[in-house]
Amino acid sequence: MEVLGGPLFAVAGAGESHGPAITTIVFGCPAGLLLDRADLQRYLDRRRPGGSRLGTPRHEADTVALLSGLYAEDHAALLAGPEVALGNLGQAAVRTSTYARGVTTGEPIAAVVLSAAGRAADYRQFAGPAGAVRPGHTDLVKFHKSSGAADVRGGGRSSFRATISDVIGGSVARLYLAAEFGTVILSSVCQVGRLRAAVSLAARAEQLSRQHPRGVPPAVLAELEQSLAQAPLWTLDRAFAAAAVERIQEVRKARDSLGAAVEVVALNVPALCGEPLYNSLKLRLMGALGGLHAAVSCEIGSGSQAVSRRGSQHNDPIRGWGYAADRHGGLIGGITTGAPLVCRVGFKPTASIGLPQQSVRKDLVETEFALGRGRHDPCVGVRAGVALESRLAIELMNAVLVHQARRVDRAAFRLFPRDESDRT
Amino acid sequence: MEVLGGPLFAVAGAGESHGPAITTIVFGCPAGLLLDRADLQRYLDRRRPGGSRLGTPRHEADTVALLSGLYAEDHAALLAGPEVALGNLGQAAVRTSTYARGVTTGEPIAAVVLSAAGRAADYRQFAGPAGAVRPGHTDLVKFHKSSGAADVRGGGRSSFRATISDVIGGSVARLYLAAEFGTVILSSVCQVGRLRAAVSLAARAEQLSRQHPRGVPPAVLAELEQSLAQAPLWTLDRAFAAAAVERIQEVRKARDSLGAAVEVVALNVPALCGEPLYNSLKLRLMGALGGLHAAVSCEIGSGSQAVSRRGSQHNDPIRGWGYAADRHGGLIGGITTGAPLVCRVGFKPTASIGLPQQSVRKDLVETEFALGRGRHDPCVGVRAGVALESRLAIELMNAVLVHQARRVDRAAFRLFPRDESDRT
Amino acid sequence: MEVLGGPLFAVAGAGESHGPAITTIVFGCPAGLLLDRADLQRYLDRRRPGGSRLGTPRHEADTVALLSGLYAEDHAALLAGPEVALGNLGQAAVRTSTYARGVTTGEPIAAVVLSAAGRAADYRQFAGPAGAVRPGHTDLVKFHKSSGAADVRGGGRSSFRATISDVIGGSVARLYLAAEFGTVILSSVCQVGRLRAAVSLAARAEQLSRQHPRGVPPAVLAELEQSLAQAPLWTLDRAFAAAAVERIQEVRKARDSLGAAVEVVALNVPALCGEPLYNSLKLRLMGALGGLHAAVSCEIGSGSQAVSRRGSQHNDPIRGWGYAADRHGGLIGGITTGAPLVCRVGFKPTASIGLPQQSVRKDLVETEFALGRGRHDPCVGVRAGVALESRLAIELMNAVLVHQARRVDRAAFRLFPRDESDRT
Amino acid sequence: MEVLGGPLFAVAGAGESHGPAITTIVFGCPAGLLLDRADLQRYLDRRRPGGSRLGTPRHEADTVALLSGLYAEDHAALLAGPEVALGNLGQAAVRTSTYARGVTTGEPIAAVVLSAAGRAADYRQFAGPAGAVRPGHTDLVKFHKSSGAADVRGGGRSSFRATISDVIGGSVARLYLAAEFGTVILSSVCQVGRLRAAVSLAARAEQLSRQHPRGVPPAVLAELEQSLAQAPLWTLDRAFAAAAVERIQEVRKARDSLGAAVEVVALNVPALCGEPLYNSLKLRLMGALGGLHAAVSCEIGSGSQAVSRRGSQHNDPIRGWGYAADRHGGLIGGITTGAPLVCRVGFKPTASIGLPQQSVRKDLVETEFALGRGRHDPCVGVRAGVALESRLAIELMNAVLVHQARRVDRAAFRLFPRDESDRT
Repeated sequence: MEVLGGPLFAVAGAGESHGPAITTIVFGCPAGLLLDRADLQRYLDRRRPGGSRLGTPRHEADTVALLSGLYAEDHAALLAGPEVALGNLGQAAVRTSTYARGVTTGEPIAAVVLSAAGRAADYRQFAGPAGAVRPGHTDLVKFHKSSGAADVRGGGRSSFRATISDVIGGSVARLYLAAEFGTVILSSVCQVGRLRAAVSLAARAEQLSRQHPRGVPPAVLAELEQSLAQAPLWTLDRAFAAAAVERIQEVRKARDSLGAAVEVVALNVPALCGEPLYNSLKLRLMGALGGLHAAVSCEIGSGSQAVSRRGSQHNDPIRGWGYAADRHGGLIGGITTGAPLVCRVGFKPTASIGLPQQSVRKDLVETEFALGRGRHDPCVGVRAGVALESRLAIELMNAVLVHQARRVDRAAFRLFPRDESDRT
Repeated sequence: MEVLGGPLFAVAGAGESHGPAITTIVFGCPAGLLLDRADLQRYLDRRRPGGSRLGTPRHEADTVALLSGLYAEDHAALLAGPEVALGNLGQAAVRTSTYARGVTTGEPIAAVVLSAAGRAADYRQFAGPAGAVRPGHTDLVKFHKSSGAADVRGGGRSSFRATISDVIGGSVARLYLAAEFGTVILSSVCQVGRLRAAVSLAARAEQLSRQHPRGVPPAVLAELEQSLAQAPLWTLDRAFAAAAVERIQEVRKARDSLGAAVEVVALNVPALCGEPLYNSLKLRLMGALGGLHAAVSCEIGSGSQAVSRRGSQHNDPIRGWGYAADRHGGLIGGITTGAPLVCRVGFKPTASIGLPQQSVRKDLVETEFALGRGRHDPCVGVRAGVALESRLAIELMNAVLVHQARRVDRAAFRLFPRDESDRT
Repeated sequence: MEVLGGPLFAVAGAGESHGPAITTIVFGCPAGLLLDRADLQRYLDRRRPGGSRLGTPRHEADTVALLSGLYAEDHAALLAGPEVALGNLGQAAVRTSTYARGVTTGEPIAAVVLSAAGRAADYRQFAGPAGAVRPGHTDLVKFHKSSGAADVRGGGRSSFRATISDVIGGSVARLYLAAEFGTVILSSVCQVGRLRAAVSLAARAEQLSRQHPRGVPPAVLAELEQSLAQAPLWTLDRAFAAAAVERIQEVRKARDSLGAAVEVVALNVPALCGEPLYNSLKLRLMGALGGLHAAVSCEIGSGSQAVSRRGSQHNDPIRGWGYAADRHGGLIGGITTGAPLVCRVGFKPTASIGLPQQSVRKDLVETEFALGRGRHDPCVGVRAGVALESRLAIELMNAVLVHQARRVDRAAFRLFPRDESDRT
Repeated sequence: MEVLGGPLFAVAGAGESHGPAITTIVFGCPAGLLLDRADLQRYLDRRRPGGSRLGTPRHEADTVALLSGLYAEDHAALLAGPEVALGNLGQAAVRTSTYARGVTTGEPIAAVVLSAAGRAADYRQFAGPAGAVRPGHTDLVKFHKSSGAADVRGGGRSSFRATISDVIGGSVARLYLAAEFGTVILSSVCQVGRLRAAVSLAARAEQLSRQHPRGVPPAVLAELEQSLAQAPLWTLDRAFAAAAVERIQEVRKARDSLGAAVEVVALNVPALCGEPLYNSLKLRLMGALGGLHAAVSCEIGSGSQAVSRRGSQHNDPIRGWGYAADRHGGLIGGITTGAPLVCRVGFKPTASIGLPQQSVRKDLVETEFALGRGRHDPCVGVRAGVALESRLAIELMNAVLVHQARRVDRAAFRLFPRDESDRT
C-alpha cells in the first residue's frame, strides 16, 4: 500500500506525472479541526515548479478540490470550493461543488488535483523495449519491474509531482499541530552544490527555543517564516540565496544540474511523542525524509558532526526548564523532548541533464543518451522544502495520536450517563 | 486507516452519502492486467439503488472516472474516458480526459464517482444537539464519537453509498482473478424476511465443481450468471424472487422494512491461498463480509447447519480429483482447497422505516421519532450482493498475492544477464 | 504477520502443537496496569483440554512464564515467577527468574508456555508424500502450501494449542478493561449438536444491563461468572449442561464428534469504540471470532434471527438512560453503544473421528483413512469459550485505544513546564 | 506494534536490558529454507559486547533457543538444541529440547535469549521521581511517557540489548538471501571520532561487482568477510583499526566516549526489489538503519558527497552488462538495480560517560550527574555493524517477497490436477 505515516494518521496517494490527476486520501485527522481549503492551497503553491523562477518552466495550476471529510451546518460556506464536472462536459455532465471550509468529521479527507499537462508529446522516445533510458531515472527498473507496463510519460508515478499528496496530507497535519500545540514547521535550503549557507535555521530554532522555554510566541514564528519566504529561494541566508541562484542559472546554461541540502525544523513540539525502537520517531523521520525523491542522506540533530565529537561535548545538559542545547535534535530514544525537531536532508543533483550520457535502451542495447529538450529543474533539492516539512508533520501527527492512545480517559467513552462510583 | 483487504491488495475509500464524491484508491494490482472502465461501470451499475425497482427511488448516475494506474501506448484509447473539469466551469476550469482502457502499471488506481445529489433539503431535522436520532442508525454514536462534528446528511460516511469503493476495488480484483484463474464470483439472494429460496447457489456451485473438477468452463459460468441476472432480484430462484418482490412492496406500503440473506460463491478458485490462524482467509472473509453495513451474521460453507451435524456427516471425503463434497465451503484451516468458496450473509431489516419509534435527540432528550419522508430501501439486503462479491474478491486477491510471495522464483529478480551457475 | 488485533493493541503468536513452546508477544498495553501472573494462569487453565473431563485426555500443564514488559521497584516480588533455565540443564545452564507481579511499562509483554508433550510417537503415519490426510484437517493444504515442509506432528501450527497466545493476549486486555471500565467478558455454551440451551447469556446480560443502566455492579457480575463455572461445561443452563455431557460421551464412544455453539458477551462496555466501515468493531469481531479454529458461523446481536424480522420489530428503542433493548448487540454502525456486546459463534464437529473415512495420501493417491488412536476432543466447541472471550477482549481493547487517540489532551504532551497562554 | 520490516517478512521483539529474556518472533520466512541454530548463534556472537575487547566488560552468553517454525523428519537432529526448563528447577520443572536444525515451515520462528545478568544492583540511583537522569539517555522521556512505570534497570527496553531481535531476524533473512541469490551482507567501521578509514568497503564492493557482473563468486566474498573479521574491530583497514582501538582506549581512560561511522554493503543483490515512493526500499533502509540506537545520520550510495556534485559527475553510466559505477548505491527510485546496496550510518558518542554532567532528577530538580561506575562501551558505533547488516537483510528480504507477490504463477495455486486449457 502506498501510504505515508500511519497507523493512525496516514496519507494515501495515487497518480502519475502526466495522468489525469493526483488523488490523495488523508486518514485519521481527529474530528473538530476547522479546515480551510485556502490553507492547503497555500502550501501546494509553494510546491509548484512555477512557484520560483528556478524550477521547470512547466506551468502547473495545481488547484486542490476537497471531496470529503469536512462538514459545516452552513452548507453554502462548506460548498464554496471549486466546482467539479464529470462526463460530456458540453451537456450531460454531473457537476457538484467541492468543500471550501468546514470542520473535520474524523472521516477520510479526499482531495484531487487535476493535471493541466494532458498531452505528452515526447513520450515516444521512451516507449517500448527500444525506448531510451535516462541515467539516474527509474526508466529501466520500472520497465523491468512492471514487465513492460510502466507509464513512460515524464517520470510516471515516480515523478516529484507525486509529492502533491505529501503536501496535502502534511498540510492537514500541520494545521492540526498548530491549532493544538502551536507547532510550526519550517525549512531552509542550506547548501547548493558546493555553496553553503552561513545562517542555520536549526541554530536559530535552538536559540529561540532557549529564549522562550515555555513556547515560542506565534508572532516570533511568523516573522521567522516571513524571512524564509523573502529570499529568491527558501532560506534564511539571503546572501547565500543570491549566490545559489546565480550558480543554478550557470549550471542550467551548461545543461547540467546541482545537488542541494535542506534543514527542516519544528518548533513548539509536543513532548513525549514517538514509540520506542522499531517505531521510534527517529526511525520514522529518517525514513520519511531520507526516503523522499532524490534524497541521499538524512541527519537528525547534529547529524554526522556528532561522529567526530566526544560524549562530553555532545550530550546536552538538562535544566529544570528544558534542554540547555539541542544537539539531540529534539529526539532522545526516538521520543520528542519538546526541543526543536531538527533534520537535514541531502539531495543528489537532478538526474535529468542536457549533456550526453552513456546509457542503454530498455532491452539493454547500449546507446548514447541525449535528452530531447532540457526543461527540468536543474536543482530539485531547492524546492523539496515543503515536501520535507509535510512528511515531518505527518509523522509527528501520527506520533501524537499514538501517544495519546495510551492515556485513556474514561470521560471519552460515555454516551449515556454512567455512574463511575460502583465500577471500581 | 480505512482500508479493506491488504497488506498487498487493498482498497482505500473516502466520501459521504451527500458529499461531492466517493473517492477510491486501489493498491497492489499487479502490472499487466488489461482493464476497461466499462467493466467497472457494469459492476457499479448493479450496486445502484435505481438498478432495481425495489431500491430507493433516488437516482444515482454513479459514473466512475479512472484517474491513475493505467497505461497504453495508444494514448487516444487510454484517454477515452469521461472528461473531468475543475474550477470555474464557465471558463477558467482545468479540464482533462480520464482513462478508458489500458493495462495496469502496478501503481495505485484512483477513481472518483461524483454525487449528483448535492443538496440535502432535510438535514435540518438531524442537525445539532437537538437533532433527531433515527433508531438503528449511527446518528447518536457518530454525533458523540465526533464530539458533534459528524456529517448529518443522509448516513454521512456510514451510508451504503460508501460501498462504491468496495465495488471498484472488487471489480479490479475479480477481473484479475478471472484473467489469471478463470475465477467467477456470484451471489444469490436466498431469504427475504421469512421467505426462503428453494434453489441454492452454493449447491449449484458444488455440483458444477464436481462435474468439472478441472475447472468449470466459462460458457457454463456465463449461463449461470445470466440466470441470476434475469430475476427481478438477483437470485437463482425465480419463483422466490417474484414472491419476495411482492412481499417487499407490501412492507414498503406498510412503511416498514425487511431483513434478507445472500449466498456468495466463488468458482474456479485458486488453491492454497490464505495464511494460517490470525490471517486466515476464513477470518478475513468472516470480517469483510460479516462486517458489511447491516450484516448481522456470516457463515462459511455449511455454516450454522454444521453445528447440528456429527463429524462423520460433516467431513468431506477427499478423492484424487478433489473434494467429493463442499460442506467445508472451499476453506480448510482458512486455506483454499480449490472447491467453491461459499459464504452466507444475513442482513437486518433496513433501519429507516416510516412507522413512529421511540428515540432521543442527540442530547438524550426523549422523543417520538418519525421519518420526514419515506424514501429508503425497504430491504437493503437484496442489493448487497455485488458489495459482498466485491469484498470476497478483494480478500481472495490479497491472499493470492501473499501466497505467491512465498514462492520465490529467481527469474523475477533479474535486470541484467546473470550467471546462476556460480551462485550456489 | 501472525498478529491478532492491532494496530495499537495486538498479539503475536508462534509455536506448533508438539513444538518446544508457544511464544506470545503482547503489544500496546498502556503503562501502569498492575498485572499478576496468576490472573493470566487462571484464564489459561480454563483453556486446557484437561480442564474438563470432556476434552482430550492429554495433560497440558501450560505454565506461563512472563519474560518482559513488567516492572516493580520491589524486585523480589517482580521476579517471583517460575524459574527458567536454558542450556545443559545439568550444569552450565543460564537460569533466571521470570515475572510474577508488576505494573506494565508500555513495552511488549512476552510469554512462553513450554510443551510437555515433546515426543510425537504417531507422526509417521502423516510424514512425507505418502503420508495420510485426515479429512477436515489442514494436512493436505499445509503440505502443498509449504511444498512439503509442514510440521506433521499433531495439527502443527494449526492446532488449537495456538490459542494459548489468544488467551494470554486476551487476559491482558480484559484485565485492563476491567480495571478501567469495569468491563467483564463471559461466554456460555448454548448448543451441542442438536441440543439447545434454554437459558441465554445474552438475554441475561441485556436484562442486567437494563436493571443497572449506570453499570452492572461487580458483585452481580461475579455471581454470574460463578454460575457459569459451576456446570460441567461452561454454560448458564445446568440441565442443558448435563444432557450435553451425556451426549458428548455417547458420541465419543461411537468414535464420532459433535458441533457446538457459544454465546460471548461483554458487559459494562465502554461506549463509542470502533472505527467506521472497514475497521468497524463489527467487522473486526466477525473476523476474530468467526475466524477461530473450527468456527463456521458468527452472529452479532440477534444475528440470523434478525433476517426474519421487520424493522419495526428489530430497531431498539432509545431512551434517555440507554437502549431499551439490545437486539443490536451493543454495536451500531460498528461502534459500541455501551449496551452489552453480544456474539454467537457456531463450531463444526471436531474433524478428528475414529470412524473410517474416504481420503487421499498427500500425493493424492486415494485411501481409506482410519485414525491411529482416538484421543481427541469429541466436541471442540465446548472449550472454545475462553478463546472467544479473549479475542473479543483484544479487539475491544484495540478499539478503546484507537478511539482515545482522537481525543488529544495537551496535558499528555508536557515534559517541562509550558505556558499554554501564549500558544493560541 | 514493535515490528521491524513487514508486511511480509517481519521481526517482533520484546525484552528489557535486565529482564529475564529477549524474545523474538520472525514472521514470513518462506517454507523450505534449511536453518541451523549454529548460524544464528554465530551472528549473535558478533553482537555481544564481550565479543571484542573494546566493548563493555559485561559478559553476556546470549545463547539462542529456537522454539518454533522449524521441522525435520529426523526428530533427533531437529531437537538437538539446548534444553529449556521452566518451573521449580529443582524438581517439578517442565523441560523440553529446542530446535537445532530443520527446514523452515513458513510458520513464525520464535527464539529466546535468556539474560544472565539478573540482579541489578545499581538501579536505585535511577528509581522513582527523585531518580537520576543520565544526559543523552531515555531516562527522563521514558519516565514521563510511561507516567512513572518505566523499567529503570540499565537502559530498560531502550537498551542496545534489544538488537538481539534484529540480529536473529536478520540472520534468518540473510541465510535465505544467500541460499536463493548468493547475497552477502557486510559492514566495515569507517570512522571513529576524527579518525577515518582509508579503505572503503563500498569501493571494494563496487569494484568486485564490476569485475564479476554475473555475480561475485562465493569464494571471493568469503575472503572479503575474512579480512573484515581479522582486524581488532570489524573493518577493512587494519592500520585504521589499530589507531582506532588506541584512541578508544584513551577515551575510555578519560571517562569519555567517541562517535563512529559504519559502511554497510550488500553484494549479489536481487534486482527489481522495492516498491515506489512511500514504501521504497530507500525509505525503508533510511528508516531501519538510520533509526538504530545512537544513529544520527544515514546515507545511501554516495550520500552527502552527492550534494556537491553535478549531475554529469553523479549519474552512473549504464552498459549492457550493468551499471558502470555505483554512486547510486544499488537503488534507483528506491528499487534495487542489482549493483551493491551501499549505506553509511553515523553514530553519536556513547551517552554514558564517567565525567560529571549537568542534569535533572526525574522530577526536574537540577543536579550534577555522575555515573556510579563506568562500565559501558566508550564507542557503541563500532559494534553496531551486525545490527545494521541485520536490518538491511530484513528490509531486503521483505522487498524480495513483495516483488515476487506481483509475479503470479498459476502453478503455485494447484492442489488437485487442473486443466488450464479451458480456463482462458
